[in-house]
Amino acid sequence: MMRLSPPNYQKIAQTQSFDAVFGGSEANIGISLAHLGLSVAHITALPDNDLGYAVQAHLRKYGVETTFIQLNPGRLGLFFCEAGAVMRPTKIIYDRYDSAFDKVAKDSFDWEEIFKDAQWFHWSGITPALSENCAYECLKAVKTAQKMGLTVSGDIYFRSGLWNYGKTPQTILPELVANTQIVLCDEAAMELYLDIDNQGFSKNFAEAAQQLMAKFPKIQKVVDTQRVSISASHNQISASLWNGKELLQTAMQDITHIVDRIGAGDAFFAGLIYGLLTYQDDQKALEFGNCASALKHTIVGDINLSSVADIERLMQGDKSGRIRR
Amino acid sequence: MMRLSPPNYQKIAQTQSFDAVFGGSEANIGISLAHLGLSVAHITALPDNDLGYAVQAHLRKYGVETTFIQLNPGRLGLFFCEAGAVMRPTKIIYDRYDSAFDKVAKDSFDWEEIFKDAQWFHWSGITPALSENCAYECLKAVKTAQKMGLTVSGDIYFRSGLWNYGKTPQTILPELVANTQIVLCDEAAMELYLDIDNQGFSKNFAEAAQQLMAKFPKIQKVVDTQRVSISASHNQISASLWNGKELLQTAMQDITHIVDRIGAGDAFFAGLIYGLLTYQDDQKALEFGNCASALKHTIVGDINLSSVADIERLMQGDKSGRIRR
Amino acid sequence: MMRLSPPNYQKIAQTQSFDAVFGGSEANIGISLAHLGLSVAHITALPDNDLGYAVQAHLRKYGVETTFIQLNPGRLGLFFCEAGAVMRPTKIIYDRYDSAFDKVAKDSFDWEEIFKDAQWFHWSGITPALSENCAYECLKAVKTAQKMGLTVSGDIYFRSGLWNYGKTPQTILPELVANTQIVLCDEAAMELYLDIDNQGFSKNFAEAAQQLMAKFPKIQKVVDTQRVSISASHNQISASLWNGKELLQTAMQDITHIVDRIGAGDAFFAGLIYGLLTYQDDQKALEFGNCASALKHTIVGDINLSSVADIERLMQGDKSGRIRR
Amino acid sequence: MMRLSPPNYQKIAQTQSFDAVFGGSEANIGISLAHLGLSVAHITALPDNDLGYAVQAHLRKYGVETTFIQLNPGRLGLFFCEAGAVMRPTKIIYDRYDSAFDKVAKDSFDWEEIFKDAQWFHWSGITPALSENCAYECLKAVKTAQKMGLTVSGDIYFRSGLWNYGKTPQTILPELVANTQIVLCDEAAMELYLDIDNQGFSKNFAEAAQQLMAKFPKIQKVVDTQRVSISASHNQISASLWNGKELLQTAMQDITHIVDRIGAGDAFFAGLIYGLLTYQDDQKALEFGNCASALKHTIVGDINLSSVADIERLMQGDKSGRIRR
Amino acid sequence: MMRLSPPNYQKIAQTQSFDAVFGGSEANIGISLAHLGLSVAHITALPDNDLGYAVQAHLRKYGVETTFIQLNPGRLGLFFCEAGAVMRPTKIIYDRYDSAFDKVAKDSFDWEEIFKDAQWFHWSGITPALSENCAYECLKAVKTAQKMGLTVSGDIYFRSGLWNYGKTPQTILPELVANTQIVLCDEAAMELYLDIDNQGFSKNFAEAAQQLMAKFPKIQKVVDTQRVSISASHNQISASLWNGKELLQTAMQDITHIVDRIGAGDAFFAGLIYGLLTYQDDQKALEFGNCASALKHTIVGDINLSSVADIERLMQGDKSGRIRR
Amino acid sequence: MMRLSPPNYQKIAQTQSFDAVFGGSEANIGISLAHLGLSVAHITALPDNDLGYAVQAHLRKYGVETTFIQLNPGRLGLFFCEAGAVMRPTKIIYDRYDSAFDKVAKDSFDWEEIFKDAQWFHWSGITPALSENCAYECLKAVKTAQKMGLTVSGDIYFRSGLWNYGKTPQTILPELVANTQIVLCDEAAMELYLDIDNQGFSKNFAEAAQQLMAKFPKIQKVVDTQRVSISASHNQISASLWNGKELLQTAMQDITHIVDRIGAGDAFFAGLIYGLLTYQDDQKALEFGNCASALKHTIVGDINLSSVADIERLMQGDKSGRIRR
Repeated sequence: MMRLSPPNYQKIAQTQSFDAVFGGSEANIGISLAHLGLSVAHITALPDNDLGYAVQAHLRKYGVETTFIQLNPGRLGLFFCEAGAVMRPTKIIYDRYDSAFDKVAKDSFDWEEIFKDAQWFHWSGITPALSENCAYECLKAVKTAQKMGLTVSGDIYFRSGLWNYGKTPQTILPELVANTQIVLCDEAAMELYLDIDNQGFSKNFAEAAQQLMAKFPKIQKVVDTQRVSISASHNQISASLWNGKELLQTAMQDITHIVDRIGAGDAFFAGLIYGLLTYQDDQKALEFGNCASALKHTIVGDINLSSVADIERLMQGDKSGRIRR
Repeated sequence: MMRLSPPNYQKIAQTQSFDAVFGGSEANIGISLAHLGLSVAHITALPDNDLGYAVQAHLRKYGVETTFIQLNPGRLGLFFCEAGAVMRPTKIIYDRYDSAFDKVAKDSFDWEEIFKDAQWFHWSGITPALSENCAYECLKAVKTAQKMGLTVSGDIYFRSGLWNYGKTPQTILPELVANTQIVLCDEAAMELYLDIDNQGFSKNFAEAAQQLMAKFPKIQKVVDTQRVSISASHNQISASLWNGKELLQTAMQDITHIVDRIGAGDAFFAGLIYGLLTYQDDQKALEFGNCASALKHTIVGDINLSSVADIERLMQGDKSGRIRR
Repeated sequence: MMRLSPPNYQKIAQTQSFDAVFGGSEANIGISLAHLGLSVAHITALPDNDLGYAVQAHLRKYGVETTFIQLNPGRLGLFFCEAGAVMRPTKIIYDRYDSAFDKVAKDSFDWEEIFKDAQWFHWSGITPALSENCAYECLKAVKTAQKMGLTVSGDIYFRSGLWNYGKTPQTILPELVANTQIVLCDEAAMELYLDIDNQGFSKNFAEAAQQLMAKFPKIQKVVDTQRVSISASHNQISASLWNGKELLQTAMQDITHIVDRIGAGDAFFAGLIYGLLTYQDDQKALEFGNCASALKHTIVGDINLSSVADIERLMQGDKSGRIRR
Repeated sequence: MMRLSPPNYQKIAQTQSFDAVFGGSEANIGISLAHLGLSVAHITALPDNDLGYAVQAHLRKYGVETTFIQLNPGRLGLFFCEAGAVMRPTKIIYDRYDSAFDKVAKDSFDWEEIFKDAQWFHWSGITPALSENCAYECLKAVKTAQKMGLTVSGDIYFRSGLWNYGKTPQTILPELVANTQIVLCDEAAMELYLDIDNQGFSKNFAEAAQQLMAKFPKIQKVVDTQRVSISASHNQISASLWNGKELLQTAMQDITHIVDRIGAGDAFFAGLIYGLLTYQDDQKALEFGNCASALKHTIVGDINLSSVADIERLMQGDKSGRIRR
Repeated sequence: MMRLSPPNYQKIAQTQSFDAVFGGSEANIGISLAHLGLSVAHITALPDNDLGYAVQAHLRKYGVETTFIQLNPGRLGLFFCEAGAVMRPTKIIYDRYDSAFDKVAKDSFDWEEIFKDAQWFHWSGITPALSENCAYECLKAVKTAQKMGLTVSGDIYFRSGLWNYGKTPQTILPELVANTQIVLCDEAAMELYLDIDNQGFSKNFAEAAQQLMAKFPKIQKVVDTQRVSISASHNQISASLWNGKELLQTAMQDITHIVDRIGAGDAFFAGLIYGLLTYQDDQKALEFGNCASALKHTIVGDINLSSVADIERLMQGDKSGRIRR
Repeated sequence: MMRLSPPNYQKIAQTQSFDAVFGGSEANIGISLAHLGLSVAHITALPDNDLGYAVQAHLRKYGVETTFIQLNPGRLGLFFCEAGAVMRPTKIIYDRYDSAFDKVAKDSFDWEEIFKDAQWFHWSGITPALSENCAYECLKAVKTAQKMGLTVSGDIYFRSGLWNYGKTPQTILPELVANTQIVLCDEAAMELYLDIDNQGFSKNFAEAAQQLMAKFPKIQKVVDTQRVSISASHNQISASLWNGKELLQTAMQDITHIVDRIGAGDAFFAGLIYGLLTYQDDQKALEFGNCASALKHTIVGDINLSSVADIERLMQGDKSGRIRR
């Protein structure tokens, strides 16, 4: 997707230009992981025009492999994003339907080939919500990944606004979740999967996560993030993880002067994956994810351009922002 | 529609921002006419979101009445435009389907109310190409206008690339043309309407125009424009008009350092309409249109912000561009 | 007036360009009210050149009727505004004399025609301070409005720096105030009108307001705003209203990261007028004004582009700035 | 003065910002001469505010001495300049009255002190047109300069639009011209000074110049420039000089892609003065002036930032624009 | 290298910012070839800091393999480039010494590994001019390439200004040329290699090329480009090639409104290599190179972002720049 | 030096342009003092090209005398500066070696002539760290200044990263310090000069300062600044001074929304020098320095463009940032 944002806190009503960055949840996570030094390929379909080529170039620029990307007829999904400040919320207008990705053909990806040397596969709840074919390919990918021994992670949030192709999340998502090891899951999603009501859940994340694991036994870790939104300019973030044995919780990061909040969730998940792969320590991985997410708030655009050293310095408690020479 | 253009001759492959202007053929003509001092209302449907409101504000800014515009669900049509230079062509990527306008409901405009105090109605061949409902409303508008005694003008170009809703131009356009007095028509369009081949036509515009009038007796004037494209930076333009009696031809305008060529055709048609309403002299009206179009090439954006005095000065032969204080 | 501001916190000593926005207290209020959905006309005189036309276009863009505006010889008033930050104050250099508005001819506005379908008239203490003719027309407008049954509101601040045409505020303002129902009035203004000293006043706003009402019996509501300026980047605002019976006070809005503070007072007054016309509830109207003013601090330019829904959400206490999709 | 120009060929009707440069004929000439390596002081009065200080800084930046400049109440003269292209003329809106310079006090400059180590004094016909006091000081300066043995040059163009303080050019200018050695003079000016009609003059520059010298015997050289304005983007310039003995004429410089034409006349005069002081050869001086002027057309802003080497390379015929490393 | 250019024709004396693009002859050629669809790796050493990483990202963005690039201590070479216009030349200030590339260690590249699957190796005369180690590695690369059967091309221009490490081009270049098949060679270079004088050469390119081949028998094709610099804004280009049998010459391309001339030579050589690899037809390859170079003049930045289709369209004579939709 | 910074919080990995400002510790201090109204000359060597001339123009613009500056071969030192936010640190990449200043010839400055009418000389610990010749000239300057009765101030920080020409700070700095009256000295520097360990020092600044005075008896005042870096966006600063009798300490300035932190130390020292010269009161001078430094954080670029009145208003406790008209 392309994000189009009026510059300098202007509103859409005022602007004569839009800053353009490419994003999309899975692409952001892929770029973050490549930037942190891992070997990453992004799987999608892009329009066969200069906009699609620009997205490919964007992925390549940050080190993501683009060999498996299809170039198809269709448009590039867009969203317009008016950055908020203080009590004025950031506003997003989606314009994402009929994209080349929505129209991907069934069985057009060779998942066995794609996963040949891979270790991890990540999907998000956006993909199965877009079209029947997207849901079909997503499920095929997840099952192939499981069969071939990859770790599968998924952001299994329930995005009720997206589902407009005739299927409901209840009929599609559970089979995907059942084939996933690491899940990012908030309250609304838990309700969907567990058939519980909201109030029960918020009291006890560990208990709900445990129920989720009981229902979907392949799940190994359930993750959730917390955001205190003091204003559009000032947020506080933290994260929790239930790994079946203990409930882990990060320190809170206080982001007092937000530069660009979009993509912070993706930065978290990329950081978490990096941490799990690198540290073999759930607490460190979770902190790494939360610190990555905090730093993303200080960076323009959808992607977290922080280095491992930058994130580890913050993990060690250096929030001073002192000049580095 | 919104035009998104990389600034400063950048290609889409390079840009980090897009200059945004609102356009669309009929809107551009309406704004030009309002800018020249006439009273104009624009009839369309816009998305009921900040992008749609911004289009309304754009029309109001330049003096166009927006009372009759519908705000509907749907998106705003877009196009991406990479400005060329010298031998590098300007490139346009359309992203216009599923707009709020395409989805306008049948009989949702009250044309009798809209035309109550009106004198002229203009339509373009884009509208009936977009959707069945658009074609339905366009025809209804044209017929109502005829019934109520308005002059009807139409750019009856045949845009083969647009028709994708199941109907063909051959089944829709003739009835529209049959209810139009002033038509802008190029060779390809003549072929469509007259069932003649291209080579015959280009030899004799007057004869072909006369045949068109014979077939569609309400037509009073047939207009065509000529553009010699020496390069993307240097064009020469002129225009011809057959009024049933004589073939009129403008002087050639030599635009040696093009600033922005988009919208020049709309500037021509607006100038022609203004001229016909003002001068009662076909030759002067045609020259006014051609000079308006020439000046548009020197102005950023889709619309011709030249004043009547600016255009008349050029009609009188002052191409010197000398500083005016 | 046109505001010219160096971009990106630059000082005038550094800048190579100025961001330009149009403003002026009454125009800002008119645009706010039109943006909130009311039908508004702005009455002024503008220079008969491209700058004057641009101001007209600006008003039209935001939905304000410009039919009654005169185009006269003279210049457009300007001010240069260097935005401050933290302990560095915003600096304004006025360059406003000899404007087309100052030179408006006596009896050149037909107030009976202007007010024919109107319900409300608003003036500010700037107008009578500019020239004898401005004062004459302002008084004529106020009296005609009273006669025709409009509600009249006025920002009756005493701007001592402006009066340079030979008259004093003491000789001109009281007659205007005497014909006004809703007045915005600070301490300095109260002193002027009531002949009291400053210390007495600040102790008891309600008492002073009551005295003002006693002296000018047409006044129905006296309003004042409070601003705690912690720094140029952080302000806290609230407002009070005495309606002859009770003293109302808003909640305080804490604007921790100011984007653009200019026009916040106008946003307040527009919000108050909208609230009084809409809610029939002084407390709600006052809160609406204060929340409108708070949101204006987060928006670039002189005018408050918040919607009714945006402002009401803040009135209901949502200061979180969470992303809206 | 400050020039405010919409960027990138935008019209005032479109722009949201203005590029700002400082200019004014005499200041531009002074800066050019300083840039060419001469020692120059500029004499004027500026407003005692940040805009005035910025003009001082601008002059200092380019090496002009600012010691004698007065800081007075009043405003800074402005002009708005909409750059044209091809057949669209550049448009200027002046907003220059009531400047701090207009209001300079009589006898507030100590010309004897100012001229102590000086060799040359330049004035333009703008100064005596602004106010009675400006005319008074200009005449006093010219006479003092003559008395102290300086060479005096003047651009004696007749700017009929400026004179609005009650005096006419006919009553003021002749005494100034009578005390000037080097005059830049076009046809309209010649008519004013010689009481001849236009047609007679244009036939024979040398003869008219000779008549001027006969009437004002201190004049040693009469200079005129010719500009063929093919379009706003393409001009051809040349210059002539009558030195009492021969009529000199430069080669024509063909400026096919104008970048910024404002200040080209000032660049010419500065180049001429530099040439006369340096080469002791009227033909070379005239060519230097014409080449300086041509190069100015390729430079953004009011001032000619070309070096002596740049100009001499063009004098020697190198128009190739080949890259210099 | 990084090119830093003042925007919008500003001079270094005026600018407050620099547009930054990455370039360098061999990198530009590599990117062009990758953009045209070939598989390309770039071999260099970059500074081990964010500037070096940005160059890597730039190469990756456009599809160039960066695996073999070294990250070393040292700086990134820079040049400042002030774009000229009309008679004002473009000016370049180099700041390239002590770069990480200059300091590359001997035998730090494993050329046999690098060339394992390669078909072609290109070097330029810049590399051996930078440092003794650069010359050493360049020679080693060329010899290894020859041994492994790659085609070797070289731009063997003699850059006298660069050689400052103690060796002369005469002692270094001949051995490199002796191991190269396709050479780009101008008059000055021919003199160096052939010990002939300039006047003799320019009369007969084919004869001189033949002599060069006689001296260096591995050379198969000698190429030269011609540029007529009418002004900094208007150039005409063509190219010639001697293949031992016939002298081929392209059509002339007339670039009437140059956008950015830097990198046009690299675009030519990349086009030539692409053409030789693709068409097996020297004339077509040469035309492809010249058309690629012409299009580069219309594109901002160092690299030619034209597609094969864009270049072939120009080869077929379409210079019209008509809008492509 | 030139500072090149990506605009709008972009990282070097993202930017397509760099904002350019000129800086360097001593130049910043000189400009601040000139801006505050003192007569200042800057002594350095600059490259003899357009970049060097631009630095001269920058100094002249702000009123600094440039007569004594040498124009030599060599480059201009650069640094790239990526502005941080919240927990993301500002990052600096230096590219400063081989500058024209490093290569200054021994005895090429005539210090007796330079100091003829001077009262004060300031040096920083950067200069002797750059090259042997720089150290030689710095020592010569300091000794000449002492001999001629000037007050000498020095920022004697120990910049271990810079010393790469073969000498150590221990062998060079003490003789410079021994000839300085006012020293800015932090803990690391004290250790170097006093051979004490860090922990001892931080407990008692006054005692360490007294030891320094004991060792270098010409020192009259020892100054240190304190910065609490809450984040890259929020710092608190204060300063202390030991004058041999009492330990003075400023109020803390809380900079909650930093605009640009670079140059704040130089603003402090300039303010201190101004204060010492103006107030004859160490406490006021120290406060003036700290307030100058605080205001610098709110100003874009390296230099403090605050006026004496601006700084004194802050000294008197007005941190409100209220609009000044």
